[in-house]
Amino acid sequence: MPGLTLPAQVSVEPDPAAALRGATIVVSAIPTQFIRTVWANFASALPPGAPIVSVAKGFESGSHRLPSEILREAIGPRAVTSTVALTGPTIAAELARRLPATMLAASLDADAAERVQRAFSTPWLRIYTHDDPIGAEVAGALKNVIALAAGMIDGLALGYNAKSALLARGLVEMVRIGAALGAKAETFFGIAGVGDLATTCFSPEGRNRACGEAIGRGVTLEAHLAQTRSVVEGVETARSVRQLAHERGVEIPITDAVCRILFEGLPPADAIRALMTREAKAERIT
Amino acid sequence: MPGLTLPAQVSVEPDPAAALRGATIVVSAIPTQFIRTVWANFASALPPGAPIVSVAKGFESGSHRLPSEILREAIGPRAVTSTVALTGPTIAAELARRLPATMLAASLDADAAERVQRAFSTPWLRIYTHDDPIGAEVAGALKNVIALAAGMIDGLALGYNAKSALLARGLVEMVRIGAALGAKAETFFGIAGVGDLATTCFSPEGRNRACGEAIGRGVTLEAHLAQTRSVVEGVETARSVRQLAHERGVEIPITDAVCRILFEGLPPADAIRALMTREAKAERIT
Repeated sequence: MPGLTLPAQVSVEPDPAAALRGATIVVSAIPTQFIRTVWANFASALPPGAPIVSVAKGFESGSHRLPSEILREAIGPRAVTSTVALTGPTIAAELARRLPATMLAASLDADAAERVQRAFSTPWLRIYTHDDPIGAEVAGALKNVIALAAGMIDGLALGYNAKSALLARGLVEMVRIGAALGAKAETFFGIAGVGDLATTCFSPEGRNRACGEAIGRGVTLEAHLAQTRSVVEGVETARSVRQLAHERGVEIPITDAVCRILFEGLPPADAIRALMTREAKAERIT
Repeated sequence: MPGLTLPAQVSVEPDPAAALRGATIVVSAIPTQFIRTVWANFASALPPGAPIVSVAKGFESGSHRLPSEILREAIGPRAVTSTVALTGPTIAAELARRLPATMLAASLDADAAERVQRAFSTPWLRIYTHDDPIGAEVAGALKNVIALAAGMIDGLALGYNAKSALLARGLVEMVRIGAALGAKAETFFGIAGVGDLATTCFSPEGRNRACGEAIGRGVTLEAHLAQTRSVVEGVETARSVRQLAHERGVEIPITDAVCRILFEGLPPADAIRALMTREAKAERIT
């Protein structure tokens, strides 16, 4: 992050045993696709009782596992520990400038969630505890798919009415998929859902929104990914969501459209026309 | 609206009896504060059975009535008719360019809602029927208060994390006030709630957001209102909401902060600091 230096108390330690010795809270900040392999080296050095704070978002390719599920599998039954998903609308460059932000500390272990809340709260970072880590993680994954679609709307210059409609209808899709995966609907209506979705769909910096915008302008997915250095998490997530939703019989018109645009060459304008002219309905949220 | 002409079929008719003769659907597009006086002249000419489509948003000052409630009172018991609230994220300039948008046709009369859905649907305007007109109207009013706060965040240049947190926590306040007024929570999680809130908080054109931005930059409410030609509905709505919420014992920290900034000179930065450092909590939506 240009122009910012890490505090002097932060040190880099490549040896797992030395890194974890005496830790009271462990933060796992590893992209979802690499959590399993990295933790294979760290699991045995984990001090008992230290909660693991996971800040990853997305589904693992192939297994469709969420970050906290991968952690549990990678660490194995010997770990007497809890995972806490720390998530919310948090663009890193804004956090680094100490601009106000909110997050959830979501865990099945209420004590662990409160420990994390106390440890990370500052006057500019307000943290709420939460008891639905699955919902918080599913929301963090799914919003990237909706952000790809939001970017396409930007690329096609369709305006705020269209993007807000996408946000509202995308939220309904997130709730439905979440319900099929054991998440609570309410989680999607809070900071980890609506809040993170708004930032991801409207902030110009977001990688998923920017990828969608390029595609909306006529760039192919391959061409965009070839010229970007960062991971566009929503692309793999869209694949996982489509498979999960089809297995469970969940209707996901927006994610289906995103997949057809990304992987099958459907023109984005055609996809939007098809979504707008589906049969007239009553609005249903859950 | 510069550059656009009305279709030739649209004519202007100042005589109530002539305007309403043979009407099968009547659209009431009158700012909330003037519905009662305008309908005093039109009520007797209303053809029986024609639903009234209301597109106004806000609470009537003093009475705190919603548009459909004012219509019912103004038209009186002789009217054998239904009201339908047509609402959603619909910036007029985008609609006029036929950019895609969604709305709700919300009514206690399902047939009337479906008639309005059929009459107003086009390939670029997708309308969902809905059975909670109170919720749809409360959402349409309250989002303007949150938009004032969103503008203040813009005026203070606090970023996307802060604005999305406001959107999520503002939505919770909207749900709480809505529940006290008889609205369903689900309505706030759909197009009339989350959807309209997103457009109102993020679109640069919105009058309420722009007013908040000026105040965030240090302009007083009086100075801003003196130089703008349009009504900033959220200002009167904030007053109504504060009174309604206090009467009903609803906790509304954001609306309270907006009122103290608008009417009591509290500096916006102080209000945000106070909101961020309230006691640590669990996230609760309803």
